[in-house]
Parts: sequence; C-alpha cells; structure tokens
Amino acid sequence: MTDKKEIRLPFPSPPFWELLGIEVVEMHEGYAKLVMPFHEKLTQPYGIVHGGALFSLADSAIAIAIVSVVEPDKKLLTVEMKINYLAPVKEGLMEAEAKILRRGRIIPSEVDIMNNNTLVAKAIATYIILDNDKKL
Amino acid sequence: MTDKKEIRLPFPSPPFWELLGIEVVEMHEGYAKLVMPFHEKLTQPYGIVHGGALFSLADSAIAIAIVSVVEPDKKLLTVEMKINYLAPVKEGLMEAEAKILRRGRIIPSEVDIMNNNTLVAKAIATYIILDNDKKL
Amino acid sequence: MTDKKEIRLPFPSPPFWELLGIEVVEMHEGYAKLVMPFHEKLTQPYGIVHGGALFSLADSAIAIAIVSVVEPDKKLLTVEMKINYLAPVKEGLMEAEAKILRRGRIIPSEVDIMNNNTLVAKAIATYIILDNDKKL
Amino acid sequence: MTDKKEIRLPFPSPPFWELLGIEVVEMHEGYAKLVMPFHEKLTQPYGIVHGGALFSLADSAIAIAIVSVVEPDKKLLTVEMKINYLAPVKEGLMEAEAKILRRGRIIPSEVDIMNNNTLVAKAIATYIILDNDKKL
Repeated sequence: MTDKKEIRLPFPSPPFWELLGIEVVEMHEGYAKLVMPFHEKLTQPYGIVHGGALFSLADSAIAIAIVSVVEPDKKLLTVEMKINYLAPVKEGLMEAEAKILRRGRIIPSEVDIMNNNTLVAKAIATYIILDNDKKL
Repeated sequence: MTDKKEIRLPFPSPPFWELLGIEVVEMHEGYAKLVMPFHEKLTQPYGIVHGGALFSLADSAIAIAIVSVVEPDKKLLTVEMKINYLAPVKEGLMEAEAKILRRGRIIPSEVDIMNNNTLVAKAIATYIILDNDKKL
Repeated sequence: MTDKKEIRLPFPSPPFWELLGIEVVEMHEGYAKLVMPFHEKLTQPYGIVHGGALFSLADSAIAIAIVSVVEPDKKLLTVEMKINYLAPVKEGLMEAEAKILRRGRIIPSEVDIMNNNTLVAKAIATYIILDNDKKL
Repeated sequence: MTDKKEIRLPFPSPPFWELLGIEVVEMHEGYAKLVMPFHEKLTQPYGIVHGGALFSLADSAIAIAIVSVVEPDKKLLTVEMKINYLAPVKEGLMEAEAKILRRGRIIPSEVDIMNNNTLVAKAIATYIILDNDKKL
C-alpha cells in the first residue's frame, strides 16, 4: 500500500468507503485494485464477512477501473452487477482486482476478490457513462 | 414498523446491519421486508446511496425470507446474486421486499427495493441450505 | 393463440425463432408473451430442454416486450441477461411472460417461464435502445 | 479441430448441439473449448447471431468443463447463468473457452466467447452436481 498516496481520484474518499474501510491501492488504464481489511463490523450472524460488504468492495473496484479510462468530468453509474461467492472470509485482507472488458458508453467489467490467496468472489458488472448534462 | 418487536430472528442483529442501519419489519412464510433509511454514510461521490448498500439490503432481505422457511438450526449461504439498478436514491426510506421462488436445498429468490414509491433496484439470488455439520 | 395473427411485429419471424419453434402470442404496452413447444431437438443429454433454449425464449420475450414501447425504426440490443433455472422441462408448452421494469434508453426487464403450471425459469435482462444511425 | 475425434464425452452429441452446430474441440481438467460456426439459422432480425445462441454455446462449454472433473455417473445441472454481450457476431467461428472456478458440489465457472479475435460475450454460471439417485 506504499503507492497509495500517489493515486489521485477525481473525488474525495466516499462516505461509504470510510464506513466499510475500502481503499484504492492501484489504478491504471482500465484496471484498479482496492482493498478492505476484515473487521467485525462487516460480519453477518456466522461471523463471516457479509456478502454485501464483498459486493461493495467489488463494485467500488470496478468504478475505479472505469474512472481510470473516462474523462474526469464524466459521471458513471452501475447499471447492474452479478456476484458469485466462492469461499467465506473470516479474517485478513480482501483484495479486489477489477478490469474493464471493453471501452465505450456501456462498459462491461469483471472483478476478482482474493483473501488469503483464495478466490472468494467473482463478479461481472455493466456501467454506463452519463452525458455531462444528465441529472442523477 | 409497529410490528417490528414481534419478529423473532434465530440470531441477534448482525454487526453489518447495525453499520448500515438495516432492520427487519416483516417476515412470514417465504417472505420478508427489510428497511434501511437514507444516511449520508451510505453515499458514494455523487451523494446517492452506494450500490453496495442497496445490494446489502437486498441480500439481507432474501436471507430473512429464507430463514422464515428453514429449520432454525440450519445455516444458509448466498451462492450468487444479481442486481439491476433502476433509479438513484437520495433520501427517504429504502424498503426491500423479498420472496422465495421455490423451496429446497437450493433456494432461488427475488427482491424489489422501493424508495419514494419508485422501484429503485431488483435482484435475483440463489441461496444454499447447508448440512448441519458443514463447517463454513 | 387465436390472437396470434393480429400481432404485427416490425420484422419477419427471425430464423432463430423458426429453428427453435418460438412464437409471439401476446404483445401490449411493455409486455409480451411468447411460447415454445417441447421438441426433442431442444434437449440436452438427460432428455430435458437445454438451458440455452429456455434462455433463448426468455430473451426473445423481453425483446418483444421492449419492441412494444419503442418507435419501430429504433434498434435494440441485449446488454446482458441472467437466468435462474427452477425445474426441468420434459414436455408441453413453455410460456414466457416478459415485462419491462422502466422505460428509457437503458431498459431493465424481467421474464418468467411457466411449463405445466410451474415456474421453470426466471430472468432479468438489460437492453439498450440504439441511436438510429448506430451501426451494429 | 484435428483433435476432436479423441474427445470422449460420457454421452452422445445432444440434439440441441446438432440443431445449433455446437462441437467440442478441447477438454481437460476443469477446462473446455467448444465452437459454433456462424449460420444464418442462428440469427435474429438484424442478421447477427441471436443472444440465445451465444448463451447456448457458453452454457454448453461450461457443462463440458465440469464434465471433465466429475465422475461419469454423476448428473449436473445449470443452477443459473449470467451473460454480458460485448460485440455482435456477423460471421466466422464462435469459440467458447470455459473453466471452473472451484470444485465441489456447487461449481462456479466462467466462459469467454471469442469471434474474429474479439471478446464478444462473457458469462459466469453456477452448476450443481446431483446425487446419483436424484430424479430430474
């Protein structure tokens, strides 16, 4: 995480990232790596990380992979996303590596989440780049 | 939400629900309704609720719809889930209504999230009921 | 199927529909119903209908539900689709009912497939309406 | 496709593969490659290959990747699958490469479809291995 300070995002760290403990550690041309450390606050009743926390990390990683290839004044939104869970997370760092699959107005992307050298989740998402004057 | 106190879950309110502000307001045979009020902590850079927060609410609603039909000693896990976002959420209450589509060891389910009388997200998920002795 | 002849599509029956035996039986404002009869040619090694045949019916139903709300000169394409299988199909008619979830340039939709009064598959899809001059 | 004859599947070529023109060209430990040549019968109204045909190829490729790692007497079924379309297919060979993401009773898998050196579709699926005595 030593390179973290060099990553300049076109926005301040979002409140939801602060809440969950999500941080960007790498970002280049169509790729991003974000991490989230295990914390008890992220867990569901069995003591493992809630699927929604993993999804949030995955979705955020894709957003940053896309931010890396669009002009800074463009807005982007998640159209849809699908995630498969492969193993429970009980400790350690979750690392999400996202890459875009194609450029354009509609951007399909994929993301893998690793934890202790195991693939714990994989997702595919579709993002849309909004027109500049588009109101949310 | 007047009936809320009468809902007895087979587990205490999970830490991740506390973090996001998720609460169960209805639960019966294969159905559950959970709510999450808008809060600034849930937002992404455009000031709207992060897709991961909506997904977390949706996933939690499905879990409770399934809890309503399985024996209390059974464990259940999300195999996969897919969500489509239809409109941004900027205020008010998010209400997720989940229902199971079929009983069995593999349980497919769907969930709609409403906000200000608008469908803001729709998801389909697959859950699995674990054998009692299954370690996570 | 008595009303079938009254349905005027903005295109001739596609070759792929002919191949699989797909027909439109209902279409109105944001809704469509398409059917496909069981046939041995649609089966996989266990003698049940191949998941791809069910998906093809579902995707086609959504396309027609969308055709019902866009101008005839517009083109539309599937961005993505996700399907859950609930029960195997061994005989009879498969009936897919599709409806759009929102209008716009990006159209999210859902579809249920029934067979012998059982829900056998459910899908959510995202379609995009192309600009008139857009080359495929 | 010179190695094709050496691939021994635990079942004869399914009718639906014959209908669409799907063939296995490679299969080893958790991996399979299947192909489908462009044909006018596979097209939708714009003259491009129907999304359902691409999905069918993708789903079939995943099935064979899984067949490569389970005992021959086991049955497997698609629980769900999600596909993203990246580019239209107007000619040539569609090549689907599938790999499993994890072994077990529930098998998550992914598949890429290439056409003319372009990624035209990507899918993630979940399969289940049935108990031997399970009736479909």
